[in-house]
Amino acid sequence: MTKKITIAIDAMGGENSPNKTIEGTCLFIKKNYLKNDFLIRLFGDKKKIEKELLRYGKIKNLEIIHTDSSVSDEETPLTAIKNSKNTSMWKCINSQIESDSDISLSAGNTGVLLVISRMILKTMSEVKKPALAGLWPNQKGTNVVLDLGANIECDDENLIDFAELGAALYKSIYPNDKPQVSLLNIGSEEIKGTETLKKAFKKLKTLSNDNNLIFKGYIEGNKIMDGDTNVIVTDGFTGNIALKTAEGTAKFITDNLKSSLTSSLISKISLIFSYFSLKKFKDKLDPRKYNGAILLGLNGPVVKSHGGTDALGFYYSIDLCYKIVKGNLMSQIKNNLSHLNGDKE
Amino acid sequence: MTKKITIAIDAMGGENSPNKTIEGTCLFIKKNYLKNDFLIRLFGDKKKIEKELLRYGKIKNLEIIHTDSSVSDEETPLTAIKNSKNTSMWKCINSQIESDSDISLSAGNTGVLLVISRMILKTMSEVKKPALAGLWPNQKGTNVVLDLGANIECDDENLIDFAELGAALYKSIYPNDKPQVSLLNIGSEEIKGTETLKKAFKKLKTLSNDNNLIFKGYIEGNKIMDGDTNVIVTDGFTGNIALKTAEGTAKFITDNLKSSLTSSLISKISLIFSYFSLKKFKDKLDPRKYNGAILLGLNGPVVKSHGGTDALGFYYSIDLCYKIVKGNLMSQIKNNLSHLNGDKE
Repeated sequence: MTKKITIAIDAMGGENSPNKTIEGTCLFIKKNYLKNDFLIRLFGDKKKIEKELLRYGKIKNLEIIHTDSSVSDEETPLTAIKNSKNTSMWKCINSQIESDSDISLSAGNTGVLLVISRMILKTMSEVKKPALAGLWPNQKGTNVVLDLGANIECDDENLIDFAELGAALYKSIYPNDKPQVSLLNIGSEEIKGTETLKKAFKKLKTLSNDNNLIFKGYIEGNKIMDGDTNVIVTDGFTGNIALKTAEGTAKFITDNLKSSLTSSLISKISLIFSYFSLKKFKDKLDPRKYNGAILLGLNGPVVKSHGGTDALGFYYSIDLCYKIVKGNLMSQIKNNLSHLNGDKE
Repeated sequence: MTKKITIAIDAMGGENSPNKTIEGTCLFIKKNYLKNDFLIRLFGDKKKIEKELLRYGKIKNLEIIHTDSSVSDEETPLTAIKNSKNTSMWKCINSQIESDSDISLSAGNTGVLLVISRMILKTMSEVKKPALAGLWPNQKGTNVVLDLGANIECDDENLIDFAELGAALYKSIYPNDKPQVSLLNIGSEEIKGTETLKKAFKKLKTLSNDNNLIFKGYIEGNKIMDGDTNVIVTDGFTGNIALKTAEGTAKFITDNLKSSLTSSLISKISLIFSYFSLKKFKDKLDPRKYNGAILLGLNGPVVKSHGGTDALGFYYSIDLCYKIVKGNLMSQIKNNLSHLNGDKE
């Protein structure tokens, strides 16, 4: 019998938890009722979890592991290593070491999650710095952007690692595609950008002959969502600014749209007619569908759900965990990095 | 008699010029028909300009200065200094020196415009590097963001200069406000960000006691459009990525909205009812209204219009030129920089 895909979930992290994490978990289990290839491990206050689970009837493929405490939002990365050993977050990540979970998921305190993930799982020997990757909607589907903020300063070697990590992630989600990788820059010509970017450009051009990725050169910020590339690589400072600027812009536009469409009686009436098309529009851009940033480059993947998401958003981050384990993320990464280190098979 | 506000315009730069630049100019002159406090100088092919002007009837407050050539889009900054001396762009900028124009405007080749502006007008002695500033719409009005790409690497001194330049620009457009200034960062806590940002933060905190700006601390990308600050300061690499990411996101959302709203007959019918409210929405976010990036820190202001904008967009960039000269941009800048250099009056 093949080993089941084992997803370790910190049930206590994020706003309105464990209610939303449990609702999201039950949604995932019910949607995948016919599959028997996965196991979910919920870490947290057993009493609370069991009480909440009563609302969802019979649930299979689920284990509960009791923990005495959880990481608060006020905990800082500095003190977390000392204070967090009995928390649901720590035990959830540690289960990748102790009991062979394949992936860990938490909606809790981001800074602490990054620190204790690195502490427990350790950075892979082939990688200098782990990176945080996210999924972005685009005109043709979804792409991967990294780093979104794990490292504020990066050299060219880090960017090359991120390219390989991002390509492996994309490949694990879309097994039939050969990942196309671009470097985020302020122009598309080869002479543009910082020295770090120019060095990374040269190296990626050479790597592009390998089998694991196609290097497409530089990409500008206004092209991120065109869908002409699959993986967009940048340092954590720039990536974080780009991600949040996109979020802010999307909010600004949809807020303005909403207030315009409800500004008069006649426009309110028109909403009845456009209800379904506007719903389709809203559904396509629903940020909950893209919930889950993936910490790559450790000896095991960790997914960070948005703290403020709801049960449906949390469901999507579990679905993401399932997909990337099923797509063999970790062996894709190892394969890509071995190409990088020159020892091709 | 007070000197007229003199706006020098490169009539030949940008797509579809001089047609659009002349149409935009005539629109500006007609809208300000009752004012007699400005003069527009059009630089370019006199025959073409005069022929085009025939379409707009009698136009006052306008001078035409013939030039033999114009800067092509293919010209590179490297060769521009040698090749551009007889062009409409060069003469337009040079008229700030030769014949006392107050400001120059071009929709032409950006790289060349930046290089020859610096060459002709020279960087102010108080400023290390000039910066490119833009206007962004936000929930409460408009803010200034800089640098948008003139300098890809900046130190803390540059960021302080940008804060003072941006505050002066904001004050010249909105004379009744005291500019609130923020530094773009990946978190709002004081410990976040690069060493450069931390140093700039400390210095701006001290400067905040001066009369010319209020320092509001760090701002994240998702808050740029909230309208809680007036001037957002960043290095040119980050600013360019943020600007273009916002543009790309806005396009992605409005494209999706458009295709949703025309996807069925019933949604098309609903468009009749929501026509006016959607038009209001579109008008508010019309990028032409924010057309014009301002090069600050030289001994004279230069405005870059988007090359691809139309006559209305070009009109808005002329209107911006008028406003910032009327608002005494250059003396606002000098005042701010003298505070910075400690020799307060």
